Amino acid sequence: MTTKNILYAQSGGATAVINVTARAVIEEARRHPQSIDRIYAASGGITGILTEKIFDLTDSNDKDIRSIENEPGAFFGTCRYKLDTPEKNPSQYDRIVSIFKEYNIGYFFYNGGNDSQDTTNRIAEWCRKSDLDIQCIGIPKTVDNDLAGTDSCPGFGSVAKYIAISTTEVTADLLSICGSSTKVFILETMGRDAGWIAASAGLGKQNEFDSPQIILLPEYAFDKDAFLQRVKTCVEKIGYCFVVASEGVKDQNNNYLAASSLIIDSFGHQQLGGVSPILANMIKQEFGYKYHWAVPDYLQRASKHIVSETDYLQAEAVGKQAVALAMTGEREVMVGIHRVSEEPYKWEIRTTPLAQVANSIKSMPDDYFDPQTSCLTAEGLIYYRPLIMGEKYPEYENGLMKKATLIKKEVEPRLTPYQI
Amino acid sequence: MTTKNILYAQSGGATAVINVTARAVIEEARRHPQSIDRIYAASGGITGILTEKIFDLTDSNDKDIRSIENEPGAFFGTCRYKLDTPEKNPSQYDRIVSIFKEYNIGYFFYNGGNDSQDTTNRIAEWCRKSDLDIQCIGIPKTVDNDLAGTDSCPGFGSVAKYIAISTTEVTADLLSICGSSTKVFILETMGRDAGWIAASAGLGKQNEFDSPQIILLPEYAFDKDAFLQRVKTCVEKIGYCFVVASEGVKDQNNNYLAASSLIIDSFGHQQLGGVSPILANMIKQEFGYKYHWAVPDYLQRASKHIVSETDYLQAEAVGKQAVALAMTGEREVMVGIHRVSEEPYKWEIRTTPLAQVANSIKSMPDDYFDPQTSCLTAEGLIYYRPLIMGEKYPEYENGLMKKATLIKKEVEPRLTPYQI
Repeated sequence: MTTKNILYAQSGGATAVINVTARAVIEEARRHPQSIDRIYAASGGITGILTEKIFDLTDSNDKDIRSIENEPGAFFGTCRYKLDTPEKNPSQYDRIVSIFKEYNIGYFFYNGGNDSQDTTNRIAEWCRKSDLDIQCIGIPKTVDNDLAGTDSCPGFGSVAKYIAISTTEVTADLLSICGSSTKVFILETMGRDAGWIAASAGLGKQNEFDSPQIILLPEYAFDKDAFLQRVKTCVEKIGYCFVVASEGVKDQNNNYLAASSLIIDSFGHQQLGGVSPILANMIKQEFGYKYHWAVPDYLQRASKHIVSETDYLQAEAVGKQAVALAMTGEREVMVGIHRVSEEPYKWEIRTTPLAQVANSIKSMPDDYFDPQTSCLTAEGLIYYRPLIMGEKYPEYENGLMKKATLIKKEVEPRLTPYQI
Repeated sequence: MTTKNILYAQSGGATAVINVTARAVIEEARRHPQSIDRIYAASGGITGILTEKIFDLTDSNDKDIRSIENEPGAFFGTCRYKLDTPEKNPSQYDRIVSIFKEYNIGYFFYNGGNDSQDTTNRIAEWCRKSDLDIQCIGIPKTVDNDLAGTDSCPGFGSVAKYIAISTTEVTADLLSICGSSTKVFILETMGRDAGWIAASAGLGKQNEFDSPQIILLPEYAFDKDAFLQRVKTCVEKIGYCFVVASEGVKDQNNNYLAASSLIIDSFGHQQLGGVSPILANMIKQEFGYKYHWAVPDYLQRASKHIVSETDYLQAEAVGKQAVALAMTGEREVMVGIHRVSEEPYKWEIRTTPLAQVANSIKSMPDDYFDPQTSCLTAEGLIYYRPLIMGEKYPEYENGLMKKATLIKKEVEPRLTPYQI
């Protein structure tokens, strides 16, 4: 039987578990020597394929491969790089095909979010049109959880856990000190278009005055008067107010709040980005309450140190099953998590055609969140709770995370250089 | 033998381990029934003493007491409240004495930082002048690590670990994506007057181009031109630049860089926040690099989910020993960590007179950090490394931290109400 080689690549923002998927892909590929010969990973996603920056992992040992899952970030490098359409720039696609041919690739796995699945889909179509027999498979990954074709997206459970835990921690801190100091705390989460991440702050909340008292999502237009009134009510009634705001909160005219107001710094520069300082300033102007705000930014998506066990297991499963299903002939699909039952929570891997997944956005269902009370609904809690279950801790050495031991052996480029 | 009662109170900003100290104080007090009768804790530090908001923990069971150490925040509530001087407002001190007398307090333990040790000292002096036989003992706590009389301050090791780990995580993320996206990341840490926290970001760094490439401390005046030049060099040479900035970074005229948004607290401290957007904007204006910035704020000091084991053990020891030493007659001292040896790292509890500790600031020694390379020196590493060793994880339940089961039984007020 002829063997082919596999090429794996990581795309988009890293998650706390993307390297678990990478490890699972490589390990599973090594279980199929009858079909798979060499195991390649691109450096920096599609950019590494275009520029022929490719690692050959075939001769690495099991222990070194296992070690990469302990690393935060995306071990092989990732990218934010959108291919032109094939119509506009067919040479890009020809280049990819040349690489695939040169390296005898039979299986291509692209691990990413919405844009990346679109990329995978376009490459798959181009290969098909080029009569090139490549099985292109998408593997999901995004902290935003807005990817279609999967009930939950690897990476999301861990960021949800990070936000839920950080909320619990800061609530306890705020509650300790609000009597004589800080009255308002604002936590700004990721989430430009969807409130999936911000809403996870409500996982420990049962009624409207539980913390966080206010959760602002991009899905619901910001109402300044109602917001300020609610802050005041909370401070007066319970002594403090914890506000969670998605970075993508929009005003009544559908403009990002972060773009609609500006704070001028001492150098006369306009401070850009940051819904939280804007909200803090509104509160200060109106009431003078002492406030603190936090923007964890990359810290939330990179939080390897507090990974959800569910997320870990799902990240592993999508990697493993992507390869296993490729061995059964699957192509032009994305593997995803399918929720089989709610209680007990059970899930399995299913596939969705890439064309259905590419560029479609999975919004948070309306019935998961009540914007009046800022509570997750019963349906929302049923959805969210299993995703943050369990703690999968990395290994430490001298108080810091143990580094991966895998050496990324870069292949000697064989084709003509290509500029991107 | 006559027994007396103890009163424990928490003060200042919460740390991830202050409730470990609280638990240890209560447990140790229960080991001395021949000297100690009732065990009280004030609600909200000194404000709870003044207003007679006091919890009686005497009849709680061991398991419930143990459970409080799993909680973030300060379990009994804390405060930022500065007593007037005895000359200006003797009635405050008389009130405290009335409370001590009413509750037959023989031992007073105040768990806090610089200002709190000053408070303890003033109360101790007033008691002495009032011929009231009360043993006042300070117990250290502050994430800032700027408290004299202790080699390391409970709370600091955990925040240092949080910052060091978050730096590692974000570095990996940034390194993954800098090829096609974010080039500069700025992490703003706590630390108004001292760079103890910010410098802990250097724990995984060995040379000047390791991440974080730039660490800005309050101890070294900010030089805009040199800063921008270094950012450029790093981006051009290694593809990215990770900047860690202490909130208290000052310009050449000794003004806070973030001075545009000041709030003054009751101690006259300026509340900062927002150096990172200012730095980000400078970089954008000059080079146009894509950047991200993060301000974890309270998330760093409240990070119960990644406590350093050294810190945990020291927080426990100061609580336990404060009570044990009180039993041997100690008074008007603060217990603290004394470093006995470097390698292997060994420490023990020693005491320092409160008068020596009160309001004095422990700066970071000049020889711990090299501002040219932003590296911790060999001396600095020897100091820091043991403080972040080990991971002491809290217990979880349904994916979130398990809540304490101890009921805080408030005593019925006996004295006339007192307004603060």
